[in-house]
Amino acid sequence: MTEIYAQRIEELRSMMRARDWDAVILTGSDPHHSEYPAERWKQVRWLTGFTGEAGDVVVTLDHAGLWTDTRYFIQANRQLAGTGVELHKTRVPEQVLIPEWLDATFPDSAVIAVDGLCQTDSDIAALPERFDIASVPDLLDAIWKDRPGIPQTPLFRVDPGEDVPSKLRWLREVIAEQGCDGILLTSLDEVAWMLNVRASDIEYNPLVISALLVTQDHAEWFVLKEEDEISAAVLSEIESEGVTLRRYDGIELALSEFQGRLMADSGTLNYHWRRQISAELHYCESPVQMRKAVKNETEVEGMRFAHLLDGIAVEQYIYWLEKSLQEGRRISEWDAALELGRLRAEADEYLGDSFETISAYGEGAALPHYITPNAGAPILEPHGLYLCDSGGQYTCGTTDITRTIPLGPCSEIEREDYTLVLKAHIDAAMAVFPAGTSGSLIDSLCREPLWRSGRNFGHGTGHGVGYVLCVHEGPHDMRQNYNSHPLLPGMVITDEPGLYREGMHGVRHENVLLVREAFETEFGRFFCFEPLTLCHFDTSILVKELLTDEELSYLNGYNELVLRELSPYLSEELCSWLREKTRPV
Amino acid sequence: MTEIYAQRIEELRSMMRARDWDAVILTGSDPHHSEYPAERWKQVRWLTGFTGEAGDVVVTLDHAGLWTDTRYFIQANRQLAGTGVELHKTRVPEQVLIPEWLDATFPDSAVIAVDGLCQTDSDIAALPERFDIASVPDLLDAIWKDRPGIPQTPLFRVDPGEDVPSKLRWLREVIAEQGCDGILLTSLDEVAWMLNVRASDIEYNPLVISALLVTQDHAEWFVLKEEDEISAAVLSEIESEGVTLRRYDGIELALSEFQGRLMADSGTLNYHWRRQISAELHYCESPVQMRKAVKNETEVEGMRFAHLLDGIAVEQYIYWLEKSLQEGRRISEWDAALELGRLRAEADEYLGDSFETISAYGEGAALPHYITPNAGAPILEPHGLYLCDSGGQYTCGTTDITRTIPLGPCSEIEREDYTLVLKAHIDAAMAVFPAGTSGSLIDSLCREPLWRSGRNFGHGTGHGVGYVLCVHEGPHDMRQNYNSHPLLPGMVITDEPGLYREGMHGVRHENVLLVREAFETEFGRFFCFEPLTLCHFDTSILVKELLTDEELSYLNGYNELVLRELSPYLSEELCSWLREKTRPV
Repeated sequence: MTEIYAQRIEELRSMMRARDWDAVILTGSDPHHSEYPAERWKQVRWLTGFTGEAGDVVVTLDHAGLWTDTRYFIQANRQLAGTGVELHKTRVPEQVLIPEWLDATFPDSAVIAVDGLCQTDSDIAALPERFDIASVPDLLDAIWKDRPGIPQTPLFRVDPGEDVPSKLRWLREVIAEQGCDGILLTSLDEVAWMLNVRASDIEYNPLVISALLVTQDHAEWFVLKEEDEISAAVLSEIESEGVTLRRYDGIELALSEFQGRLMADSGTLNYHWRRQISAELHYCESPVQMRKAVKNETEVEGMRFAHLLDGIAVEQYIYWLEKSLQEGRRISEWDAALELGRLRAEADEYLGDSFETISAYGEGAALPHYITPNAGAPILEPHGLYLCDSGGQYTCGTTDITRTIPLGPCSEIEREDYTLVLKAHIDAAMAVFPAGTSGSLIDSLCREPLWRSGRNFGHGTGHGVGYVLCVHEGPHDMRQNYNSHPLLPGMVITDEPGLYREGMHGVRHENVLLVREAFETEFGRFFCFEPLTLCHFDTSILVKELLTDEELSYLNGYNELVLRELSPYLSEELCSWLREKTRPV
Repeated sequence: MTEIYAQRIEELRSMMRARDWDAVILTGSDPHHSEYPAERWKQVRWLTGFTGEAGDVVVTLDHAGLWTDTRYFIQANRQLAGTGVELHKTRVPEQVLIPEWLDATFPDSAVIAVDGLCQTDSDIAALPERFDIASVPDLLDAIWKDRPGIPQTPLFRVDPGEDVPSKLRWLREVIAEQGCDGILLTSLDEVAWMLNVRASDIEYNPLVISALLVTQDHAEWFVLKEEDEISAAVLSEIESEGVTLRRYDGIELALSEFQGRLMADSGTLNYHWRRQISAELHYCESPVQMRKAVKNETEVEGMRFAHLLDGIAVEQYIYWLEKSLQEGRRISEWDAALELGRLRAEADEYLGDSFETISAYGEGAALPHYITPNAGAPILEPHGLYLCDSGGQYTCGTTDITRTIPLGPCSEIEREDYTLVLKAHIDAAMAVFPAGTSGSLIDSLCREPLWRSGRNFGHGTGHGVGYVLCVHEGPHDMRQNYNSHPLLPGMVITDEPGLYREGMHGVRHENVLLVREAFETEFGRFFCFEPLTLCHFDTSILVKELLTDEELSYLNGYNELVLRELSPYLSEELCSWLREKTRPV
């Protein structure tokens, strides 16, 4: 099975010899610097068999290496065995990153080949200057015979309360303010947001592989791949809104012909396209990112409705789970995930999941990147903790929720961990903070109850969520790493502290929160959070003494809200079950 | 009175005309970028009469301007009236800083004169390149006839548990690790720390105006000003520890002759000295700063003893204050400050104050930079809040304490503010945090109780404190502005949240805390704080319901600790008073 990878690497080396390349760098990203790329751009997986979400490969004539971080060491060691690819560890003290490794390996003027479409300008700038860079778009095409094409799925519109002409007007004002003549948007969710358009070009992410070039006179959308298959009605609608349709591969010529001063985001623009630009480039953080993050009233209402639909599905799911176990049915993690998907799909507005459901019982939940196996998945037992992290894409919004569900009696340590993580979740959710506060300051409010008891978790506390867009959305977040972007009213963010004990259990409690105005006093404007997620937190295994009166009252208030909001949509049986579940503690 | 300043500015202009200078920039700093300069370098005050701690001046042939921030607008307007100097506001949205202002005012090749000794390299680098910079050390000498000389006060040693040869060995290892041949230390507290030497060259700051140049073979201390007056015994002791004594003004020649690669701190090296260096310069944050911030065992014990002595004095002071008011005596803010100084001076180890005491009653305490007037100071009345922020320099450590003392009945809002600020103080003091945590994350834990009630304060929550050194010491702090330096065991930091209501009252509660190991678990190492300050918090006006059980128990425990530690050193009368004051609530 692994010989195929060794063979592919040899084919790459033949190509390298023929072209006098000393090394080839391949990344797992796409021309839009997407967090999740389409199949076509899973080049690292095709070449090495490594399926982790983060990993870059360097192949030389006598070495092949995969650079990945702590999260993937075990997986990489397993998947790379027999391929001849060596693991280079990153995020460890002794790490040697790709630029340093190349620097130590090759003499001056060595030729380093890259697929410039799949690396950003700054990636390439980090390489030693003394090398020659050969940027070859789609360089694997020559040996990846059945490489998938650029995806092209049906387009559809969303109605976020602001039309395309209005968004274009706003963007043109920004361009003028910056003293520029145009802006290039290559980040897929920014293009989708600008044009109120969606598709399914990337799994779980309702995006259209395309780019947008806006000047004072024109808006050119580089989108057409195979002319006939694309959704004609949507396209002509967008055309009527002042947007010119272009072939996707026309972007390079358009960039080379652009005159004047062009704005672009250095964080997402790829090296190959960057090199086509002869005009003056004004690098900046894309203004679309921040505006997109602040949801307008229509989007907030849509998100509310999406979370109502999602809450109905998840409550039905938890009820089903509980009854099934009581009835002694044999349910695996995989069966459970399927049932949740089926329940979500009952809503007409459901488009699909917003990411792959994590359905993990017991020790599986302690693995940070657990993937529920579809065959031989562990069976849920009527004791201990079951963690389910999932989300839906709806026509009116995107959701992301984690509940940790006690399936029966729990140990002392499970109960304590469950309670302290809930305390952490509540402390963040109750936070009030002045205008200008960055999410990293809220992160410590959330972690402090865990820190005090010698506990901690290794991921961020929260990330932004898109409106019928990516479930991970910037620029704001709540993490220990400093992020200067303040939390602003209209932003949505997850609140998801966790705790993971290897070989034992994992706990995570996650709601999506909306940032809103709290009050204004002589000391300034203050903001607070409002939960959008509607699904009760189980209180049966709570160690009540670990919560303050204020925290308990928040918890009771939240569960009461869930009951009140969902009851009108639930069966009588489910209602009375939920009434029990949300009884104040 | 103000004509003198107008006249001095005219004299400066005569000089400018004679030398063909278009503008002169003067700052309030010294050649060592000290926070507080000696008299000789209070150039802004001499020229304009402005006494604020932050302010830069630009004089042109037809304009004189003072650039200062929000804290000083009222003071600047008052002090500059009649001088012809205009206020340029900084830290306001419409600010035009000196480089921009000069850029808008002068054509290419204008000559901008600066006292290069009193500006850092980066200050000058910020000026438009199209100007010619004339760097003239001590340029005011020509017109400031009675300008004070470079201070030269008696030297004395401290014993911080590590001798000079050991510190030099460590520093030489760092130099070698950085691939350098030497290091230049110009920050006065770093030089004092390296040589275990102190003096009184700057008010409140026990520093010696000097610089230190260390290579693998030599350590040259540029210190001698007027040969005969300096403390001979201390000097020969330091010489015997492997340090060569040089004249202070010999630094320039030494820098010009230095061969090899020289480390220096870009944050403190002055422009004039920088220009003497012909060798390769390796700019970095000085390694002494971080090592100095982490106190060793001897220093920690010394700090503990200094805080014991300080606690004894402050408790006596609060007792005196209470009794005096009960007896109906007429005491002004100034009288009170004098009495506090007198009580501190009773300890043999007392060297002086660590900064000018803020003794402020009622609305005075609401002013962020209140200076207690020595004549006509407000009289303390037997009601409302009195704020006293003070500190001592002892032979074994440095202290900084603020107590807000109810002098009698208080209003509801005074009581609430008093309690909430104490709650904030306690929440920071109780914090537990993992290794690597920056103080800015603790800052939000401290502020959250104030934020929730729509309150906030405009200064940092905490700063480092030196060991018989500056009362403000970096590189760590607790502020909303991000500071990447983590809090490490052995660091000391103040915890001083506040609340200020203009025209009403001010509250601040401040202890000095020591960072220490809390515990290590499977989730990593955790640190916590231990209070060094020993002085009770008054509980008479507490709004008890605003504190959680945990906060109340911390407060009771702290007051109990104060009683236990101080009792052996207090009179019976004072002891029984303190027993009452520290009775658990």
